[in-house]
Amino acid sequence: MNHNFQNELVEELRDLLSAEKQILKALPKMAKKASSAKLKEAFEIHKEETEKQVQRLEEVFQSLDLKPRAKTCEGIKGIIEEGEEMMSKEVTPEVLDALLIATAQKVEHYEIASYGTICSWAELLGLTEIKDLLGETLSEEEQTDKNLTKLSKSVNKKAIGQAA
Amino acid sequence: MNHNFQNELVEELRDLLSAEKQILKALPKMAKKASSAKLKEAFEIHKEETEKQVQRLEEVFQSLDLKPRAKTCEGIKGIIEEGEEMMSKEVTPEVLDALLIATAQKVEHYEIASYGTICSWAELLGLTEIKDLLGETLSEEEQTDKNLTKLSKSVNKKAIGQAA
Repeated sequence: MNHNFQNELVEELRDLLSAEKQILKALPKMAKKASSAKLKEAFEIHKEETEKQVQRLEEVFQSLDLKPRAKTCEGIKGIIEEGEEMMSKEVTPEVLDALLIATAQKVEHYEIASYGTICSWAELLGLTEIKDLLGETLSEEEQTDKNLTKLSKSVNKKAIGQAA
Repeated sequence: MNHNFQNELVEELRDLLSAEKQILKALPKMAKKASSAKLKEAFEIHKEETEKQVQRLEEVFQSLDLKPRAKTCEGIKGIIEEGEEMMSKEVTPEVLDALLIATAQKVEHYEIASYGTICSWAELLGLTEIKDLLGETLSEEEQTDKNLTKLSKSVNKKAIGQAA
């Protein structure tokens, strides 16, 4: 076991815990702003998923005998800041839906990169339980991103004024 | 043409122009910090690619009769801030390489999400030239991410003290 490297894994876990908590706070606002019923539902479902994902991270900290201490994730903070600026724009509800999806996909991609890194580090460190647990989250984030891409087809058409 | 929506496309282009310029500044530092020769080379190659990607964005602005004006991309700013914190850590050069890849993949994923959005919006708005031009960049970012994943296999093994 390389403690040097395991410390870095823990730092990344702290970053992710902060990311998930920031996302958990942002999702209800995004659901409220969404006018497409399907998009609203997608954000609500993902909020429930995010709650489970926070629990998984807490379990991981527990398995390492550590307190689940978050460390501000600046990447997600920046993405959410941009998202909030978008949500305050004076655009049609249809264009706003398209912007909400764009922000949500940036969030998902941050998480895909981060969980991808964590899972490969955990596997290499022989932390199989952590790799499996967070591998579930990684699959959920990838699926959410795919669902958003699918949903964007009809949402974007409405945004440019075409019938979806 | 929906001007409301096209304005948002321009806003996203400004965000991306800022992102690329920030990345262009970060890559030489990352290449300098990398100890793996292959990783150093990957960052150097990606810097050249990024210069081309900035040019493509400038061409896109030109095709829309607009000045290429960047607007600070807070997402990439946050990711790079975290990367700089990582680079100042007292870890072995091998662990640092693993951290550099983790940061670079977050950067790539931000860009994949953003160019993905731009390309689908441009297509829908009938801006085929923009879609094609930035589609090339999107493919490059996806390829860079794949290359980094491949490279991480040997880099991470060295980071935990295994011969790669």
